[in-house]
Amino acid sequence: MGDEPVGTVRPGGRTARTRAAVTEALQAELLEVGYAGTTIERIAQRAGVAKTTVYRRWGSLTQLVVDVFAETAGTLIPPPDTGSLEGDLRELGRASIALLTMPRLRTVFDIVVREAIHDPATRAALTEFFAARIEIGTAIVQRAVERGEAPPGTDAAEVIRLVGAPYYARAYITGEALDPAIADRTAAMIALAAREGLLNQRESR
Amino acid sequence: MGDEPVGTVRPGGRTARTRAAVTEALQAELLEVGYAGTTIERIAQRAGVAKTTVYRRWGSLTQLVVDVFAETAGTLIPPPDTGSLEGDLRELGRASIALLTMPRLRTVFDIVVREAIHDPATRAALTEFFAARIEIGTAIVQRAVERGEAPPGTDAAEVIRLVGAPYYARAYITGEALDPAIADRTAAMIALAAREGLLNQRESR
Repeated sequence: MGDEPVGTVRPGGRTARTRAAVTEALQAELLEVGYAGTTIERIAQRAGVAKTTVYRRWGSLTQLVVDVFAETAGTLIPPPDTGSLEGDLRELGRASIALLTMPRLRTVFDIVVREAIHDPATRAALTEFFAARIEIGTAIVQRAVERGEAPPGTDAAEVIRLVGAPYYARAYITGEALDPAIADRTAAMIALAAREGLLNQRESR
Repeated sequence: MGDEPVGTVRPGGRTARTRAAVTEALQAELLEVGYAGTTIERIAQRAGVAKTTVYRRWGSLTQLVVDVFAETAGTLIPPPDTGSLEGDLRELGRASIALLTMPRLRTVFDIVVREAIHDPATRAALTEFFAARIEIGTAIVQRAVERGEAPPGTDAAEVIRLVGAPYYARAYITGEALDPAIADRTAAMIALAAREGLLNQRESR
Protein backbone atom coordinates (compact mmCIF):
# COMPACT_ATOMS: atom_id res chain seq x y z
CA MET A 1 0.00 0.00 0.00
CA GLY A 2 1.17 3.51 -0.72
CA ASP A 3 3.39 2.45 -3.65
CA GLU A 4 0.82 2.28 -6.49
CA PRO A 5 1.43 4.94 -9.14
CA VAL A 6 -1.20 7.66 -8.81
CA GLY A 7 -2.43 7.18 -12.39
CA THR A 8 -3.74 3.66 -11.74
CA VAL A 9 -5.94 4.64 -8.82
CA ARG A 10 -9.69 4.61 -9.38
CA PRO A 11 -11.60 7.39 -7.65
CA GLY A 12 -11.83 6.57 -3.94
CA GLY A 13 -9.85 3.36 -4.28
CA ARG A 14 -6.53 4.31 -2.77
CA THR A 15 -8.01 6.95 -0.50
CA ALA A 16 -10.50 4.45 0.86
CA ARG A 17 -7.78 1.81 1.38
CA THR A 18 -5.55 4.29 3.19
CA ARG A 19 -8.42 5.37 5.38
CA ALA A 20 -9.36 1.78 6.19
CA ALA A 21 -5.76 0.84 7.03
CA VAL A 22 -5.21 3.93 9.19
CA THR A 23 -8.55 3.41 10.98
CA GLU A 24 -7.64 -0.19 11.70
CA ALA A 25 -4.16 0.77 12.88
CA LEU A 26 -5.45 3.54 15.11
CA GLN A 27 -7.94 1.29 16.88
CA ALA A 28 -5.38 -1.47 17.33
CA GLU A 29 -2.81 0.98 18.73
CA LEU A 30 -5.31 2.53 21.14
CA LEU A 31 -6.22 -0.87 22.51
CA GLU A 32 -2.57 -1.93 22.79
CA VAL A 33 -0.81 1.14 24.12
CA GLY A 34 -3.58 3.61 25.00
CA TYR A 35 -3.93 7.18 23.82
CA ALA A 36 -0.82 8.35 25.66
CA GLY A 37 1.33 5.80 23.80
CA THR A 38 -0.27 6.22 20.39
CA THR A 39 1.59 8.29 17.83
CA ILE A 40 1.08 9.12 14.17
CA GLU A 41 4.43 7.43 13.52
CA ARG A 42 3.28 4.11 14.99
CA ILE A 43 -0.06 4.29 13.22
CA ALA A 44 1.55 5.03 9.85
CA GLN A 45 4.02 2.18 10.28
CA ARG A 46 1.29 -0.25 11.28
CA ALA A 47 -0.97 0.86 8.42
CA GLY A 48 1.89 0.61 5.92
CA VAL A 49 1.48 4.21 4.77
CA ALA A 50 3.85 7.18 4.84
CA LYS A 51 3.78 9.29 7.98
CA THR A 52 3.42 12.37 5.79
CA THR A 53 0.26 10.91 4.24
CA VAL A 54 -1.35 10.71 7.66
CA TYR A 55 -0.21 14.22 8.63
CA ARG A 56 -1.35 15.65 5.29
CA ARG A 57 -4.80 14.13 5.52
CA TRP A 58 -5.56 14.42 9.23
CA GLY A 59 -3.15 17.04 10.58
CA SER A 60 -2.93 15.65 14.12
CA LEU A 61 -3.67 12.58 16.21
CA THR A 62 -6.66 14.35 17.77
CA GLN A 63 -8.17 15.11 14.38
CA LEU A 64 -7.56 11.56 13.24
CA VAL A 65 -9.32 10.14 16.30
CA VAL A 66 -12.31 12.44 15.86
CA ASP A 67 -12.49 11.67 12.15
CA VAL A 68 -12.36 7.90 12.69
CA PHE A 69 -15.06 8.20 15.31
CA ALA A 70 -17.29 10.39 13.14
CA GLU A 71 -16.81 8.22 10.04
CA THR A 72 -17.50 4.96 11.87
CA ALA A 73 -20.40 6.24 13.96
CA GLY A 74 -21.92 7.94 10.92
CA THR A 75 -21.76 4.71 8.94
CA LEU A 76 -23.10 2.56 11.77
CA ILE A 77 -26.14 4.70 12.52
CA PRO A 78 -28.05 5.22 9.27
CA PRO A 79 -31.21 7.30 9.79
CA PRO A 80 -34.05 4.80 10.24
CA ASP A 81 -37.43 4.91 8.47
CA THR A 82 -39.72 2.38 10.15
CA GLY A 83 -43.03 4.12 9.44
CA SER A 84 -43.60 5.49 12.95
CA LEU A 85 -41.89 8.08 15.11
CA GLU A 86 -41.59 5.73 18.05
CA GLY A 87 -40.16 3.02 15.81
CA ASP A 88 -37.62 5.38 14.29
CA LEU A 89 -36.53 6.68 17.69
CA ARG A 90 -36.23 3.12 18.98
CA GLU A 91 -34.00 2.14 16.05
CA LEU A 92 -31.87 5.22 16.52
CA GLY A 93 -31.51 4.46 20.22
CA ARG A 94 -30.66 0.81 19.68
CA ALA A 95 -28.01 1.74 17.13
CA SER A 96 -26.50 4.25 19.60
CA ILE A 97 -26.38 1.62 22.32
CA ALA A 98 -24.84 -0.93 19.95
CA LEU A 99 -22.19 1.61 19.01
CA LEU A 100 -21.38 2.43 22.64
CA THR A 101 -20.96 -1.24 23.43
CA MET A 102 -18.51 -2.07 20.61
CA PRO A 103 -15.17 -2.28 22.46
CA ARG A 104 -12.93 -0.92 19.70
CA LEU A 105 -15.19 1.96 18.73
CA ARG A 106 -15.94 2.70 22.39
CA THR A 107 -12.23 3.12 23.00
CA VAL A 108 -12.13 5.77 20.29
CA PHE A 109 -15.27 7.46 21.58
CA ASP A 110 -13.95 7.46 25.15
CA ILE A 111 -10.88 9.34 23.99
CA VAL A 112 -12.89 11.86 21.99
CA VAL A 113 -15.22 12.56 24.94
CA ARG A 114 -12.30 12.80 27.36
CA GLU A 115 -10.21 15.08 25.15
CA ALA A 116 -13.23 17.28 24.36
CA ILE A 117 -13.37 18.21 28.05
CA HIS A 118 -10.07 20.07 27.92
CA ASP A 119 -9.14 20.44 24.26
CA PRO A 120 -11.12 23.10 22.34
CA ALA A 121 -10.34 21.59 18.90
CA THR A 122 -11.71 18.19 19.94
CA ARG A 123 -14.69 19.90 21.59
CA ALA A 124 -15.46 21.76 18.36
CA ALA A 125 -15.10 18.60 16.26
CA LEU A 126 -17.38 16.57 18.54
CA THR A 127 -20.01 19.32 18.67
CA GLU A 128 -19.87 19.60 14.88
CA PHE A 129 -20.28 15.84 14.53
CA PHE A 130 -23.41 15.85 16.70
CA ALA A 131 -24.85 18.94 15.04
CA ALA A 132 -24.61 17.09 11.70
CA ARG A 133 -26.14 13.93 13.16
CA ILE A 134 -28.99 15.91 14.74
CA GLU A 135 -29.55 17.63 11.39
CA ILE A 136 -29.75 14.27 9.57
CA GLY A 137 -32.16 12.99 12.21
CA THR A 138 -34.62 15.82 11.78
CA ALA A 139 -36.10 14.08 8.70
CA ILE A 140 -37.52 11.53 11.16
CA VAL A 141 -39.52 14.25 12.90
CA GLN A 142 -40.56 15.84 9.62
CA ARG A 143 -42.12 12.55 8.52
CA ALA A 144 -43.79 12.20 11.93
CA VAL A 145 -45.38 15.64 11.52
CA GLU A 146 -46.57 14.67 8.01
CA ARG A 147 -48.12 11.47 9.44
CA GLY A 148 -49.84 13.47 12.19
CA GLU A 149 -47.80 11.84 15.00
CA ALA A 150 -46.45 15.19 16.18
CA PRO A 151 -47.76 18.73 15.78
CA PRO A 152 -46.20 21.18 13.31
CA GLY A 153 -43.63 23.25 15.17
CA THR A 154 -42.18 20.21 16.94
CA ASP A 155 -38.54 20.91 17.78
CA ALA A 156 -36.93 18.22 15.64
CA ALA A 157 -33.41 18.88 16.88
CA GLU A 158 -34.55 18.52 20.48
CA VAL A 159 -36.34 15.24 19.74
CA ILE A 160 -33.21 13.74 18.20
CA ARG A 161 -30.98 15.18 20.93
CA LEU A 162 -33.13 13.58 23.63
CA VAL A 163 -32.78 10.12 22.07
CA GLY A 164 -29.08 9.91 22.85
CA ALA A 165 -29.03 11.67 26.21
CA PRO A 166 -29.97 8.70 28.45
CA TYR A 167 -27.32 6.45 26.91
CA TYR A 168 -24.55 9.00 27.03
CA ALA A 169 -25.41 9.93 30.61
CA ARG A 170 -25.24 6.27 31.63
CA ALA A 171 -22.01 5.64 29.76
CA TYR A 172 -20.10 8.74 30.87
CA ILE A 173 -21.75 10.17 33.96
CA THR A 174 -23.53 7.63 36.14
CA GLY A 175 -21.47 4.73 34.77
CA GLU A 176 -24.45 2.40 34.58
CA ALA A 177 -25.05 -0.53 32.26
CA LEU A 178 -26.44 0.03 28.78
CA ASP A 179 -29.42 -2.20 28.11
CA PRO A 180 -31.04 -2.18 24.64
CA ALA A 181 -34.45 -2.18 26.39
CA ILE A 182 -33.73 1.39 27.53
CA ALA A 183 -34.10 2.40 23.88
CA ASP A 184 -37.72 1.16 23.85
CA ARG A 185 -38.65 3.11 26.96
CA THR A 186 -36.90 6.29 25.83
CA ALA A 187 -38.50 6.12 22.37
CA ALA A 188 -41.98 5.72 23.90
CA MET A 189 -41.39 8.64 26.28
CA ILE A 190 -40.15 11.03 23.58
CA ALA A 191 -42.84 10.03 21.06
CA LEU A 192 -45.54 10.67 23.68
CA ALA A 193 -44.05 14.04 24.66
CA ALA A 194 -43.81 15.07 21.00
CA ARG A 195 -47.42 13.99 20.31
CA GLU A 196 -48.66 16.02 23.28
CA GLY A 197 -46.82 19.11 22.02
CA LEU A 198 -44.34 19.21 24.91
CA LEU A 199 -41.41 19.32 22.51
CA ASN A 200 -42.59 22.23 20.37
CA GLN A 201 -40.12 24.93 19.49
CA ARG A 202 -40.00 27.54 22.19
CA GLU A 203 -40.42 31.24 21.52
CA SER A 204 -37.06 32.91 21.32
CA ARG A 205 -36.64 35.23 24.24
CA MET B 1 -5.04 26.23 61.32
CA GLY B 2 -3.69 22.81 62.24
CA ASP B 3 -2.02 24.01 65.43
CA GLU B 4 -5.00 24.05 67.82
CA PRO B 5 -4.67 21.43 70.57
CA VAL B 6 -7.04 18.55 69.80
CA GLY B 7 -8.82 18.87 73.16
CA THR B 8 -10.23 22.34 72.37
CA VAL B 9 -11.89 21.35 69.12
CA ARG B 10 -15.68 21.15 69.11
CA PRO B 11 -17.18 18.27 67.12
CA GLY B 12 -16.93 19.10 63.45
CA GLY B 13 -15.24 22.45 64.02
CA ARG B 14 -11.68 21.76 63.02
CA THR B 15 -12.64 19.04 60.56
CA ALA B 16 -15.08 21.38 58.87
CA ARG B 17 -12.50 24.19 58.72
CA THR B 18 -9.88 21.88 57.23
CA ARG B 19 -12.36 20.61 54.68
CA ALA B 20 -13.42 24.15 53.72
CA ALA B 21 -9.82 25.34 53.39
CA VAL B 22 -8.77 22.30 51.33
CA THR B 23 -11.86 22.60 49.09
CA GLU B 24 -11.12 26.26 48.50
CA ALA B 25 -7.44 25.56 47.81
CA LEU B 26 -8.22 22.71 45.42
CA GLN B 27 -10.61 24.79 43.33
CA ALA B 28 -8.19 27.73 43.21
CA GLU B 29 -5.30 25.48 42.19
CA LEU B 30 -7.33 23.76 39.48
CA LEU B 31 -8.27 27.13 37.98
CA GLU B 32 -4.71 28.43 38.20
CA VAL B 33 -2.57 25.49 37.13
CA GLY B 34 -5.02 22.84 35.88
CA TYR B 35 -5.26 19.24 37.01
CA ALA B 36 -1.85 18.30 35.65
CA GLY B 37 -0.16 20.98 37.76
CA THR B 38 -2.18 20.43 40.92
CA THR B 39 -0.53 18.47 43.72
CA ILE B 40 -1.49 17.59 47.28
CA GLU B 41 1.61 19.52 48.40
CA ARG B 42 0.46 22.76 46.77
CA ILE B 43 -3.10 22.34 48.05
CA ALA B 44 -1.91 21.69 51.62
CA GLN B 45 0.38 24.71 51.52
CA ARG B 46 -2.36 26.96 50.13
CA ALA B 47 -4.91 25.67 52.66
CA GLY B 48 -2.44 26.08 55.53
CA VAL B 49 -2.75 22.47 56.62
CA ALA B 50 -0.20 19.69 56.91
CA LYS B 51 0.33 17.59 53.80
CA THR B 52 -0.10 14.48 55.93
CA THR B 53 -3.55 15.70 57.01
CA VAL B 54 -4.69 15.80 53.39
CA TYR B 55 -3.17 12.40 52.63
CA ARG B 56 -4.65 10.87 55.78
CA ARG B 57 -8.14 12.15 55.07
CA TRP B 58 -8.35 11.81 51.28
CA GLY B 59 -5.61 9.38 50.30
CA SER B 60 -5.00 10.81 46.83
CA LEU B 61 -5.66 13.83 44.64
CA THR B 62 -8.27 11.85 42.68
CA GLN B 63 -10.19 10.98 45.84
CA LEU B 64 -9.98 14.56 47.03
CA VAL B 65 -11.41 15.87 43.76
CA VAL B 66 -14.27 13.37 43.78
CA ASP B 67 -14.99 14.11 47.44
CA VAL B 68 -15.05 17.87 46.92
CA PHE B 69 -17.36 17.42 43.95
CA ALA B 70 -19.71 15.06 45.81
CA GLU B 71 -19.80 17.23 48.93
CA THR B 72 -20.45 20.44 47.02
CA ALA B 73 -22.96 18.98 44.57
CA GLY B 74 -24.75 17.16 47.38
CA THR B 75 -25.10 20.39 49.36
CA LEU B 76 -26.18 22.45 46.36
CA ILE B 77 -28.94 20.10 45.20
CA PRO B 78 -31.23 19.44 48.17
CA PRO B 79 -34.14 17.12 47.22
CA PRO B 80 -37.06 19.44 46.37
CA ASP B 81 -40.63 19.08 47.68
CA THR B 82 -42.84 21.45 45.68
CA GLY B 83 -46.09 19.52 45.94
CA SER B 84 -46.07 18.10 42.39
CA LEU B 85 -43.91 15.63 40.50
CA GLU B 86 -43.38 18.01 37.62
CA GLY B 87 -42.46 20.82 40.03
CA ASP B 88 -39.99 18.63 41.89
CA LEU B 89 -38.35 17.42 38.66
CA ARG B 90 -38.13 21.01 37.41
CA GLU B 91 -36.39 22.13 40.62
CA LEU B 92 -34.01 19.19 40.45
CA GLY B 93 -33.21 20.00 36.83
CA ARG B 94 -32.69 23.70 37.47
CA ALA B 95 -30.35 22.92 40.35
CA SER B 96 -28.35 20.55 38.13
CA ILE B 97 -28.05 23.20 35.43
CA ALA B 98 -27.03 25.84 37.98
CA LEU B 99 -24.36 23.49 39.28
CA LEU B 100 -23.01 22.75 35.80
CA THR B 101 -22.73 26.46 35.07
CA MET B 102 -20.75 27.43 38.19
CA PRO B 103 -17.22 27.86 36.80
CA ARG B 104 -15.29 26.64 39.86
CA LEU B 105 -17.45 23.63 40.50
CA ARG B 106 -17.65 22.86 36.79
CA THR B 107 -13.86 22.72 36.69
CA VAL B 108 -13.94 20.06 39.40
CA PHE B 109 -16.77 18.15 37.71
CA ASP B 110 -14.96 18.26 34.35
CA ILE B 111 -11.95 16.59 35.92
CA VAL B 112 -14.04 13.94 37.63
CA VAL B 113 -15.89 13.09 34.40
CA ARG B 114 -12.65 13.06 32.41
CA GLU B 115 -10.73 10.92 34.90
CA ALA B 116 -13.66 8.52 35.27
CA ILE B 117 -13.24 7.59 31.61
CA HIS B 118 -9.86 5.96 32.19
CA ASP B 119 -9.41 5.64 35.96
CA PRO B 120 -11.45 2.84 37.59
CA ALA B 121 -11.25 4.39 41.10
CA THR B 122 -12.71 7.68 39.87
CA ARG B 123 -15.31 5.77 37.84
CA ALA B 124 -16.38 3.85 40.93
CA ALA B 125 -16.53 7.02 43.05
CA LEU B 126 -18.61 8.90 40.49
CA THR B 127 -20.99 5.97 40.01
CA GLU B 128 -21.36 5.69 43.78
CA PHE B 129 -22.09 9.42 44.06
CA PHE B 130 -24.87 9.19 41.48
CA ALA B 131 -26.31 6.00 42.96
CA ALA B 132 -26.65 7.85 46.29
CA ARG B 133 -28.20 10.92 44.61
CA ILE B 134 -30.66 8.73 42.68
CA GLU B 135 -31.54 6.97 45.93
CA ILE B 136 -32.24 10.29 47.68
CA GLY B 137 -34.35 11.42 44.74
CA THR B 138 -36.64 8.40 44.85
CA ALA B 139 -38.65 10.04 47.68
CA ILE B 140 -39.90 12.49 45.03
CA VAL B 141 -41.44 9.66 43.05
CA GLN B 142 -42.80 7.96 46.17
CA ARG B 143 -44.73 11.14 47.02
CA ALA B 144 -45.95 11.39 43.41
CA VAL B 145 -47.33 7.84 43.63
CA GLU B 146 -49.05 8.71 46.92
CA ARG B 147 -50.60 11.78 45.28
CA GLY B 148 -51.78 9.69 42.32
CA GLU B 149 -49.52 11.47 39.83
CA ALA B 150 -47.77 8.25 38.85
CA PRO B 151 -48.88 4.61 39.08
CA PRO B 152 -47.49 2.27 41.76
CA GLY B 153 -44.56 0.40 40.28
CA THR B 154 -43.08 3.54 38.71
CA ASP B 155 -39.33 3.09 38.39
CA ALA B 156 -38.23 5.89 40.72
CA ALA B 157 -34.52 5.48 39.97
CA GLU B 158 -35.19 5.77 36.24
CA VAL B 159 -37.29 8.91 36.70
CA ILE B 160 -34.51 10.62 38.65
CA ARG B 161 -31.83 9.34 36.27
CA LEU B 162 -33.70 10.81 33.28
CA VAL B 163 -33.81 14.27 34.86
CA GLY B 164 -30.05 14.74 34.59
CA ALA B 165 -29.43 13.01 31.27
CA PRO B 166 -30.26 15.93 28.91
CA TYR B 167 -28.00 18.34 30.80
CA TYR B 168 -25.08 15.99 31.07
CA ALA B 169 -25.37 15.03 27.40
CA ARG B 170 -25.32 18.70 26.40
CA ALA B 171 -22.43 19.53 28.69
CA TYR B 172 -20.18 16.59 27.86
CA ILE B 173 -21.29 15.05 24.58
CA THR B 174 -22.92 17.47 22.17
CA GLY B 175 -21.27 20.51 23.79
CA GLU B 176 -24.40 22.63 23.54
CA ALA B 177 -25.51 25.50 25.77
CA LEU B 178 -27.33 24.80 29.02
CA ASP B 179 -30.53 26.82 29.27
CA PRO B 180 -32.59 26.68 32.50
CA ALA B 181 -35.72 26.45 30.30
CA ILE B 182 -34.61 22.94 29.30
CA ALA B 183 -35.41 21.89 32.86
CA ASP B 184 -39.07 22.86 32.39
CA ARG B 185 -39.43 20.89 29.19
CA THR B 186 -37.63 17.83 30.56
CA ALA B 187 -39.70 17.86 33.75
CA ALA B 188 -42.95 18.03 31.77
CA MET B 189 -41.84 15.17 29.51
CA ILE B 190 -40.82 12.86 32.35
CA ALA B 191 -43.88 13.65 34.49
CA LEU B 192 -46.14 12.83 31.53
CA ALA B 193 -44.32 9.58 30.77
CA ALA B 194 -44.50 8.55 34.44
CA ARG B 195 -48.23 9.37 34.62
CA GLU B 196 -48.90 7.27 31.53
CA GLY B 197 -47.05 4.31 33.03
CA LEU B 198 -44.20 4.41 30.51
CA LEU B 199 -41.62 4.49 33.30
CA ASN B 200 -42.89 1.50 35.27
CA GLN B 201 -40.39 -1.01 36.51
CA ARG B 202 -39.68 -3.59 33.86
CA GLU B 203 -39.91 -7.32 34.44
CA SER B 204 -36.49 -8.71 35.17
CA ARG B 205 -35.41 -10.90 32.34
